[in-house]
Amino acid sequence: MSRFIVGVMGGGETATAEHCRLANRLGQLIARQGWVLLNGGRPAGIMEASARGAREYGGLTVGILPDRDSRSASAYIDIVIATGMGDGRNYINALSSHVLVALPGQAGTISEIALALKNNKQVILLGWDTGNLFNAYRRNGQLHTATTPEDVIGLIKSISQS
Amino acid sequence: MSRFIVGVMGGGETATAEHCRLANRLGQLIARQGWVLLNGGRPAGIMEASARGAREYGGLTVGILPDRDSRSASAYIDIVIATGMGDGRNYINALSSHVLVALPGQAGTISEIALALKNNKQVILLGWDTGNLFNAYRRNGQLHTATTPEDVIGLIKSISQS
Amino acid sequence: MSRFIVGVMGGGETATAEHCRLANRLGQLIARQGWVLLNGGRPAGIMEASARGAREYGGLTVGILPDRDSRSASAYIDIVIATGMGDGRNYINALSSHVLVALPGQAGTISEIALALKNNKQVILLGWDTGNLFNAYRRNGQLHTATTPEDVIGLIKSISQS
Amino acid sequence: MSRFIVGVMGGGETATAEHCRLANRLGQLIARQGWVLLNGGRPAGIMEASARGAREYGGLTVGILPDRDSRSASAYIDIVIATGMGDGRNYINALSSHVLVALPGQAGTISEIALALKNNKQVILLGWDTGNLFNAYRRNGQLHTATTPEDVIGLIKSISQS
Repeated sequence: MSRFIVGVMGGGETATAEHCRLANRLGQLIARQGWVLLNGGRPAGIMEASARGAREYGGLTVGILPDRDSRSASAYIDIVIATGMGDGRNYINALSSHVLVALPGQAGTISEIALALKNNKQVILLGWDTGNLFNAYRRNGQLHTATTPEDVIGLIKSISQS
Repeated sequence: MSRFIVGVMGGGETATAEHCRLANRLGQLIARQGWVLLNGGRPAGIMEASARGAREYGGLTVGILPDRDSRSASAYIDIVIATGMGDGRNYINALSSHVLVALPGQAGTISEIALALKNNKQVILLGWDTGNLFNAYRRNGQLHTATTPEDVIGLIKSISQS
Repeated sequence: MSRFIVGVMGGGETATAEHCRLANRLGQLIARQGWVLLNGGRPAGIMEASARGAREYGGLTVGILPDRDSRSASAYIDIVIATGMGDGRNYINALSSHVLVALPGQAGTISEIALALKNNKQVILLGWDTGNLFNAYRRNGQLHTATTPEDVIGLIKSISQS
Repeated sequence: MSRFIVGVMGGGETATAEHCRLANRLGQLIARQGWVLLNGGRPAGIMEASARGAREYGGLTVGILPDRDSRSASAYIDIVIATGMGDGRNYINALSSHVLVALPGQAGTISEIALALKNNKQVILLGWDTGNLFNAYRRNGQLHTATTPEDVIGLIKSISQS
């Protein structure tokens, strides 16, 4: 059987220190569950912080890189998938994650939430809210909100058992 | 010089008759300006209605199809680009449009708005509002709201002259 | 109905003057048939030459660009599709062409021939031979060889009528 | 540091039992080196055989799937990357592999060889020859031929040290 993959999305260069701490903690908890952490692979913001957290607890990290060259990935990524497709890789992030967790971000992160919801994935927001825009998906049970990384883990467990 | 391309995005099977009338009218006006209309190419909703409108006024229509096979496109599309990339083609819709107009839609349309904003494109909302989620882009002048198809044309003219 | 699209592939910066003359002539003949010419969109080699030829006879040209930015296209391209997907766009070239013509090129061109054959497209070689590698496709009637641009047009006509 | 990834390409449903035995053995040897095996992820031919071999020796396997749904992957794949991009994923196979090994295959495999060579990757042929078509890359030292899986391992070691 293939490994269970949790996608962790969020801002890159614009991420705040507080949001990076959340991402780091979430990465640690994902690793402790034995799950694989997948993100956008770049050495910045939520990507770097979540991968570092997973690594600190011996977890396996996968980065889906926009670039052609694997060497531009974060040093905390174990498996670098070099797509050469720019933000076209956001679709792959969405499809490859069994559950997607989105920390605060700008349009790139919002595109990943949207593509995941469009493709019937479960999405968990951590540390922010996206307002009313995705209400149809909240009502049909695809979109969830968590306030702590620990809550995220609980939500993922309840989602994957249902 | 290459032709000026206006992307028209919005719901597929879920689009209402009223929104399809708006899309049809917008397609007509785009054609009358001599601009190329680009959309997602499928024979449904805003895609079908906007392409039909452009065709009624002799306009040229381009459809960026998620499918592998050109034959699944709307009959109102002149140039079918078969990507075989599913929603991965939403990124191409965003990059290939000089300006993107978004009528009401669900997550697919929202992903196209987000990918366009992320890639420094101008986006015009017609017939709906996306709430506060994209406020940063409204403030920096990338995101606009129009109430009629005629307003959209005026906005595109003022954007492309600036 | 959508327009009939002929893809013209071949070398970029490495193309010889003689091969560019062939591509230019082929572009002219495609335009005279009223067909749309599709290529990789860059201002180099077979791409530039074939688009210029089609334009000289009033033809419509579509360029599927590897870049994110439409402005890097050849000046002879009417409709620029900016994919932002690098050589990932070679798959789109193959799928969007009703028939693919390949002039001499290196690995990029060979990948386009291979992706077209894999996806059940008819491929015509002009001005070179690819040896035995694609013999299975020659035997099943997908791969053809032409010696002049005029021959290519004849082959396309016989293919699309069958 | 990220893990060293060896891509193993080759035929799917058309692969012979002998070629699958070669792929299985190659997968075992890749795992014994501690390298990650990457392939196209489907439960067929060289993909299934190479992943099974790597798993038998405790190796880690990554499958870059053409499908939208991870569940269509081979049971021997640990990390399923669902691209939803059809053969567009062949470009990702090429870019993500530090070295690409190609066993006998048809046009899909040839496209992967071509895309890898185009993007400056080292390619090793095992169990077949591609004739003269890629001679320019043989001459510049990018294209190699091996006769046994053991030879492949030796070649990869000498390539990655140089």
